Amino acid sequence: MTEKNIQVLLARRPEGQVQTSDFKIVETPLPDIADGQLLVRNHYLSLDPYMRGRMSAAKSYAQSVNIGEVMVGGTVGQVVASRHAGFKVGDHVVGFLGWQLYGVSDGTALIRIDTSGIPLSAYLGVMGMPGATAYVGLMDIGQPKPGETVVVSAASGAVGSVVGQIAKIKGCRAVGIAGGPDKCTYVVKELGFDACIDYKQGRLAEDLAKAAPKGIDVYFENVGGPIFDTVLTRMNPFGRIPLCGLISQYNAIEPYGLKNVGSLLINRIKLQGFIVSDHLVRWPEAFEDIGQWLKEGRIKYRESIAQGIENAPAAFIGLLAGKNFGKQLVKLI
Amino acid sequence: MTEKNIQVLLARRPEGQVQTSDFKIVETPLPDIADGQLLVRNHYLSLDPYMRGRMSAAKSYAQSVNIGEVMVGGTVGQVVASRHAGFKVGDHVVGFLGWQLYGVSDGTALIRIDTSGIPLSAYLGVMGMPGATAYVGLMDIGQPKPGETVVVSAASGAVGSVVGQIAKIKGCRAVGIAGGPDKCTYVVKELGFDACIDYKQGRLAEDLAKAAPKGIDVYFENVGGPIFDTVLTRMNPFGRIPLCGLISQYNAIEPYGLKNVGSLLINRIKLQGFIVSDHLVRWPEAFEDIGQWLKEGRIKYRESIAQGIENAPAAFIGLLAGKNFGKQLVKLI
Repeated sequence: MTEKNIQVLLARRPEGQVQTSDFKIVETPLPDIADGQLLVRNHYLSLDPYMRGRMSAAKSYAQSVNIGEVMVGGTVGQVVASRHAGFKVGDHVVGFLGWQLYGVSDGTALIRIDTSGIPLSAYLGVMGMPGATAYVGLMDIGQPKPGETVVVSAASGAVGSVVGQIAKIKGCRAVGIAGGPDKCTYVVKELGFDACIDYKQGRLAEDLAKAAPKGIDVYFENVGGPIFDTVLTRMNPFGRIPLCGLISQYNAIEPYGLKNVGSLLINRIKLQGFIVSDHLVRWPEAFEDIGQWLKEGRIKYRESIAQGIENAPAAFIGLLAGKNFGKQLVKLI
Repeated sequence: MTEKNIQVLLARRPEGQVQTSDFKIVETPLPDIADGQLLVRNHYLSLDPYMRGRMSAAKSYAQSVNIGEVMVGGTVGQVVASRHAGFKVGDHVVGFLGWQLYGVSDGTALIRIDTSGIPLSAYLGVMGMPGATAYVGLMDIGQPKPGETVVVSAASGAVGSVVGQIAKIKGCRAVGIAGGPDKCTYVVKELGFDACIDYKQGRLAEDLAKAAPKGIDVYFENVGGPIFDTVLTRMNPFGRIPLCGLISQYNAIEPYGLKNVGSLLINRIKLQGFIVSDHLVRWPEAFEDIGQWLKEGRIKYRESIAQGIENAPAAFIGLLAGKNFGKQLVKLI
């Protein structure tokens, strides 16, 4: 057990591309805990695209991280000291303790988890925020009907991979969009999508016409930019677009101009931006279903694991560039 | 009674701006009617932005007008000959008999109207398709709550003027966007909006900040383009955007690129494209409410009336350029 805490702080706000020098890694003493608090040794840190927004001062749905503060992030770990009645030493917990080895909590938003059947890290992926995001966005906003075609971008990622697998379970045609042949092979062969388009081949419109010959009823959007624009040309009347992310735009200094807005009107499309934390009431049902599908082998997942907290910044930069393959984690122990 | 029919045909598909030479005006014999048909002398023709889409071959929600066919359009008129059991000579009717003095109908989509309390022309405006559009878009998609701020573009137009007045009736702050000081004065002084911004002044962002100091909860979109982009920067969390039209784009050869798509995500906005004919089930309630508000003097309207069928093309071109003031009609009698 390390006697020191290691933390990754936001050193400055990035302009355009995030750089490792936007972060600062510091060693600090282990924090003391007061009555009602507990200390958690984090085992895994989750890296997620939303963190890019928290690095900016721009208005967003959540508070920015201040310069000099520990970067925010989801974590799983184990309680190592407790003066909180609800948690005891040895408990496994999932929460938002940030980019650091140890975190102090008063129990707020900290959840005790059962790791007997499900690996600890899965609580940051399919059984965590990304899994709930896929479930709520697809089921509640996308409302897929059997026989419809569901397209999802960033299809090999933590959210997209679950979206397509749920679409299949619900009787839809699932088409992924991903970057590179390896990801596409994985999406089709391992995850069981009907098709996956490698957007890096530069033929997205033609490939979409082939992969979604009856048009697109639900487009689960994670990326934005020119991919979004091209998908809009293939939407069916009364299509739905759960707008979950715009990762292609997060580093952009000048945002992409979306041209095919007319498709939203002509096709009477419902587009809804959403943040999964607005839908906490739906999480229990999401995890009940996903947990069941995991046990039945109907949902699979993959993790990209960076080793050591000092590698978190580089792994995060890689995530924004699509270098991860499945859920991006940092192993902290 | 004219013994000849005069019709406006689509002569060719416009490229960019519509021109009068895209139309052809012809004189034809009065049509005979068969059993089950009736002949209507049209009194007013409605000119509406959607007609621009029908002139194009591009995929849209409705069939294009073929070259050489009579332009489609809503009309009100009077039955002058009938071999249809449901209509007799002298009945006033509203329907879609197109850009012509006389139209034959088998009764499909033709509705007998009561002109005792409401002027005939109103059935092409507040008590017709534009009124239903305003009602359905605002009430069903916009779902305004008392105290919220509703912004509507093309605010002096047939749809926009009703949107803002309903917003006021529902206890909202109503802010219009229109082109020019005369329209803005009308929107505030006569229609009773709380504010109206003249976008031609080129300070839309600043003026919106002043006119909607608590942000925008509902944006009823009729125009698209840079106005849409600017409004997106002022949307509140959980805002709604009924997407009714994109008139600024209909003549565009290269569509405007919408930059602030990120606002839809960050603010978890629900945007829904809609066409009022998909919501026929809602029309009776719309007209019951609007009819009541008209009688109570709570809804006002204005008409721009072009004289004579031969002036329909120029009036339509003016409509696309925002030269009308209120509902654009052509008087045919």
